[in-house]
Amino acid sequence: MFFASDNTGPVHPRVMEALAEANSGYAMGYGADALMDRVRDRIREVFEAPDAAVYLVATGTAANSLALATLANPWDTIFCTPVAHIQEDECNAPEFYSGGAKLTLVGADDKMTSRTLRAAIEGEETRGVHGPQRGPVSITQVTERGSVYTLEELRELTAVANDFDLPVHLDGARFANALVALGCSPAEMTWQASVNAVSFGGTKNGLMGAEAVVFFDPAQGWEFELRRKRGAHLFSKHRYLSAQMEAYLADGLWLEMAEQANANCTRLAVGLRDAGAEFLNVPQANMIFAALPRRVHQRLKAEGAMYYLQGGPLETGDGDEPLGCRLVCDWSISADLIDRFVELAKS
Amino acid sequence: MFFASDNTGPVHPRVMEALAEANSGYAMGYGADALMDRVRDRIREVFEAPDAAVYLVATGTAANSLALATLANPWDTIFCTPVAHIQEDECNAPEFYSGGAKLTLVGADDKMTSRTLRAAIEGEETRGVHGPQRGPVSITQVTERGSVYTLEELRELTAVANDFDLPVHLDGARFANALVALGCSPAEMTWQASVNAVSFGGTKNGLMGAEAVVFFDPAQGWEFELRRKRGAHLFSKHRYLSAQMEAYLADGLWLEMAEQANANCTRLAVGLRDAGAEFLNVPQANMIFAALPRRVHQRLKAEGAMYYLQGGPLETGDGDEPLGCRLVCDWSISADLIDRFVELAKS
Amino acid sequence: MFFASDNTGPVHPRVMEALAEANSGYAMGYGADALMDRVRDRIREVFEAPDAAVYLVATGTAANSLALATLANPWDTIFCTPVAHIQEDECNAPEFYSGGAKLTLVGADDKMTSRTLRAAIEGEETRGVHGPQRGPVSITQVTERGSVYTLEELRELTAVANDFDLPVHLDGARFANALVALGCSPAEMTWQASVNAVSFGGTKNGLMGAEAVVFFDPAQGWEFELRRKRGAHLFSKHRYLSAQMEAYLADGLWLEMAEQANANCTRLAVGLRDAGAEFLNVPQANMIFAALPRRVHQRLKAEGAMYYLQGGPLETGDGDEPLGCRLVCDWSISADLIDRFVELAKS
Amino acid sequence: MFFASDNTGPVHPRVMEALAEANSGYAMGYGADALMDRVRDRIREVFEAPDAAVYLVATGTAANSLALATLANPWDTIFCTPVAHIQEDECNAPEFYSGGAKLTLVGADDKMTSRTLRAAIEGEETRGVHGPQRGPVSITQVTERGSVYTLEELRELTAVANDFDLPVHLDGARFANALVALGCSPAEMTWQASVNAVSFGGTKNGLMGAEAVVFFDPAQGWEFELRRKRGAHLFSKHRYLSAQMEAYLADGLWLEMAEQANANCTRLAVGLRDAGAEFLNVPQANMIFAALPRRVHQRLKAEGAMYYLQGGPLETGDGDEPLGCRLVCDWSISADLIDRFVELAKS
Repeated sequence: MFFASDNTGPVHPRVMEALAEANSGYAMGYGADALMDRVRDRIREVFEAPDAAVYLVATGTAANSLALATLANPWDTIFCTPVAHIQEDECNAPEFYSGGAKLTLVGADDKMTSRTLRAAIEGEETRGVHGPQRGPVSITQVTERGSVYTLEELRELTAVANDFDLPVHLDGARFANALVALGCSPAEMTWQASVNAVSFGGTKNGLMGAEAVVFFDPAQGWEFELRRKRGAHLFSKHRYLSAQMEAYLADGLWLEMAEQANANCTRLAVGLRDAGAEFLNVPQANMIFAALPRRVHQRLKAEGAMYYLQGGPLETGDGDEPLGCRLVCDWSISADLIDRFVELAKS
Repeated sequence: MFFASDNTGPVHPRVMEALAEANSGYAMGYGADALMDRVRDRIREVFEAPDAAVYLVATGTAANSLALATLANPWDTIFCTPVAHIQEDECNAPEFYSGGAKLTLVGADDKMTSRTLRAAIEGEETRGVHGPQRGPVSITQVTERGSVYTLEELRELTAVANDFDLPVHLDGARFANALVALGCSPAEMTWQASVNAVSFGGTKNGLMGAEAVVFFDPAQGWEFELRRKRGAHLFSKHRYLSAQMEAYLADGLWLEMAEQANANCTRLAVGLRDAGAEFLNVPQANMIFAALPRRVHQRLKAEGAMYYLQGGPLETGDGDEPLGCRLVCDWSISADLIDRFVELAKS
Repeated sequence: MFFASDNTGPVHPRVMEALAEANSGYAMGYGADALMDRVRDRIREVFEAPDAAVYLVATGTAANSLALATLANPWDTIFCTPVAHIQEDECNAPEFYSGGAKLTLVGADDKMTSRTLRAAIEGEETRGVHGPQRGPVSITQVTERGSVYTLEELRELTAVANDFDLPVHLDGARFANALVALGCSPAEMTWQASVNAVSFGGTKNGLMGAEAVVFFDPAQGWEFELRRKRGAHLFSKHRYLSAQMEAYLADGLWLEMAEQANANCTRLAVGLRDAGAEFLNVPQANMIFAALPRRVHQRLKAEGAMYYLQGGPLETGDGDEPLGCRLVCDWSISADLIDRFVELAKS
Repeated sequence: MFFASDNTGPVHPRVMEALAEANSGYAMGYGADALMDRVRDRIREVFEAPDAAVYLVATGTAANSLALATLANPWDTIFCTPVAHIQEDECNAPEFYSGGAKLTLVGADDKMTSRTLRAAIEGEETRGVHGPQRGPVSITQVTERGSVYTLEELRELTAVANDFDLPVHLDGARFANALVALGCSPAEMTWQASVNAVSFGGTKNGLMGAEAVVFFDPAQGWEFELRRKRGAHLFSKHRYLSAQMEAYLADGLWLEMAEQANANCTRLAVGLRDAGAEFLNVPQANMIFAALPRRVHQRLKAEGAMYYLQGGPLETGDGDEPLGCRLVCDWSISADLIDRFVELAKS
């Protein structure tokens, strides 16, 4: 019963097969492999963006930090929510890669609104050279609390950014989960909604460690390439990144896995609702933030369930008191395990 | 006939098997996988260093830059040769990771001597706060020109560093190739020779993308961990780095591959010597720097041989004029291909 | 009627005399001048800190950024208020000098409380390497909104910092104004209250451009010296910084000027109260944040008064509507000008 | 007898008068003072560059580092000589301000030649993203060894830079000394010779602490302004920088002081030649690098002469052995003191 994260599960067998297949003969390194040419074409096709600059890195933090550093100046501030991965979980990597840019926190939730975003941007009056300059807006889709922006919401946010001539970055660590939740196209969720650069995640959705970064303005590509190399994120044996991404996009595997992950999450949510869980917000993709009585958590943990608690110790306190937790489903978790978890939660 | 680099060949089948084996069930991320515990123990054993701090990253540039940043202050200068990978091939990654340290180039060759190193260090009189402060010495073993320092030479260099209280980093991208060339133990080539931190390469020797960084003073570990995370080099699905390294060190696979690579290189060198090649220096590990007549290169390239030329265009000029090249052998290149290359060089 | 800032007034004549006096003959550069020896001794005496490390720089932003960079690691977050000068008015200098540290904003006011500080620090659960690490607490005294922490309040804040083993920086750009407001000693307001490093301002209180940085642990001095030089803030003709600071501290000039500035502010506040101004908070040092009807501002501006408005345009809108402003008094503003300003505000 | 540096002498009385004059009434801060408007106009006039962007900072290292950071990318390498101030005497400030750019050392002397510069640039083959990218060329005029490039030499160097589309920075810490040595115009020595940005020194030539930075392409101004503020080099009481620079350029004071300094140097050089000194190179501006017997140095030092020795200890060794030294003249040193120094050297 592993609900700790969507990075604790296995790599999809078809991805492993692709790696095995790529492991034959010789290939030029550093992105000059023939597989990468195919991946680039495929991603341009998927995004309906024939000129996009496309790159691969191995971690989501690298994708985010390098993309933001390309969009931001060191004297800028980047707009994101207080729970953004770039704010909370990257150990100052965005500050490091950007050469010292600041992060301005928008609103108090996992989702920005056009109102909170506008207020935050206006709050950063630039006052000439004295304050930080207004920099990129970074939107996480699926958010770090499992919510999904509608296309309408996305467009409202990017409209605000456009009002101030600010570039927009989409942290798509769970891009596929959002896409299948919305039932829209990659183009609609990105450049057609005025997004300039995307971290297109794969690692949380069945890959071993591969993320694409896509710039819809190819003029930003060369700077990104230099930043990637300088950041030590250019792989010599690059074909093994390419192979993962090629398998991911072949025959809709990426969507299939995301659909499965979201479906698993729905099954779990429905079960937990029946078990009396209180939800922090409506699960829309593959993550649940909910509260269960402390004694329920104790029982689940005793049975070996793996997931993160939020907001208090497990051991002490009233057994009936609700205690928050985060539950994440990937494509691989079986219905049986979900059902067993739910049974334990109910009993 | 692929002699372009030791990162163009395939991953060893046993490493692929280990990846497949690791791809089962769930594992905690970010280095908390059980495999990593085994890898840590194994590397401590290999280095006879029971307290060493051991980490994995995916690229050699990450290993070097993060290790050096941990050893250096931003106002220091790092001592290395003019052909050091950290100077020539990392797009200022050491400067980036160290927060702006300088590199001082020692001597004019691929090997430092105690004399050139001492002269360089003394040349950086610190003059109080005005000049850069003296920082770590970084030694590449095998050097970027295919030479191997003897243990005696290494100890002479580190003795100079010790005289100035400077820490020593070993760039061991080809650590195994040096080890089998010297026939010594990892301990002898590192901490017993006063080396403080090692980039212990695997990618150029049959892995997919995995390098260890070893600090013999474990007190330096925590800073490295923070730097690795901040640099976006901590893998969420870390088990796939661990699995590579575990297979590498199991049953002597790493030494076996290095021996094969060096033997392949010797076979090629002997053949080329007979073909009249002039050697820039004596090949001691798995790289050859030699000159052949331009027309020989033209013939080899026409037959599809892949390798780097040095010092001039292939197309124009006197066909008899010697033209430099770099030839690198990994474990996988077959005797047949080597012999065919030599035949073409001779004819 | 210049109330725009305490950096718009003239340098005190006794400081100008000291500069003229210092301008004779030759003096070693870069802080090795004999004047600096006297300044160092005098500051140690003033702070009752015989071992303190003492340095001079020319700008307050340099003092803050260099001091914080010495106390913080690049992966740390620095705790300060949302209106802190280091957050709002230094164009990311703290991020730049620290190599990419983050700033975590404490509370919603110009003053932290032990409660808001503790909540902010606890909010930055470090979660191992994932989040930023907890770093220094930076307290501004006088605050950027003209408030003064009592000694009790200061000690409560530093007690929280101590609970988490975090160092404390005091941004004392208006140190003297706070000191005379509290009627305490420099030692009481700093190291006796567990402050580790102080930006001891002079520029806003009658100097041309000189600030001291004081570390109560002299072991931090050498790193600061290297950071100062590397930041290009070490003056070759250092004697002209020393001369300013020596005159500042001679015969109580610094306290005399601060008392005058605070008294000027009180005279202005009393007058404005009678004129019906609404105060954002009680003026405690030399700054007033208050609201006056828009038409009053229009009249004042028409008469050439110089100061900053806050929160809206002057030109349009209801003339009776209150509009915020900031008014700053230095030592030099005359009672006549203050009275004239008040008269205009009343009429 | 102070020949240690041109930053050990006093500020010129007319500059002190200008400071006193500026010290009246109120002035807007941060470069918005009326004096700065006049300085900007005057510098544009002096350089015959009506569109130039002009800024003031207080130290030469700030001028150099901020100018170079504006011209260079973090992944670039900056070309300079091995004795360049930016290489030897700025404690990695250029690396810090540029975000980690490298410095490539050109030739082995204090003067680059078109041949050594071209070789250095070509040596930095960029090899795609692997090596550092070619960045600005920084030329010091007067060099750090007291030589002056002819206009012809300057133009040859900038022609090489132009061949590779690289921007050119002139470190003019002793700009005036070079100008009077060459008898040319500021325009001839800068933009007419394809120089893009100049550190226009004043501190070493009679000012208290003021340097201008001039960009001939005004489009580079805004980035510089942000870098200056972020680097904590924007003065709040800016009028005292402006006043210095205004006095400097009024009535040819700057040229008068430089002529005097160079004349003092010539008088000293002639005297020392007669005393048997061996010159490292021909003194062309206000610095002498020469060797005298050790016993002569001992006599001079015993009489209180202040200057730097180069290449060995004073106390021990053969009294007849020549020992190098650096002697710098500013405008203020008297003929009597020079003559007394020479007499001591002869006797």
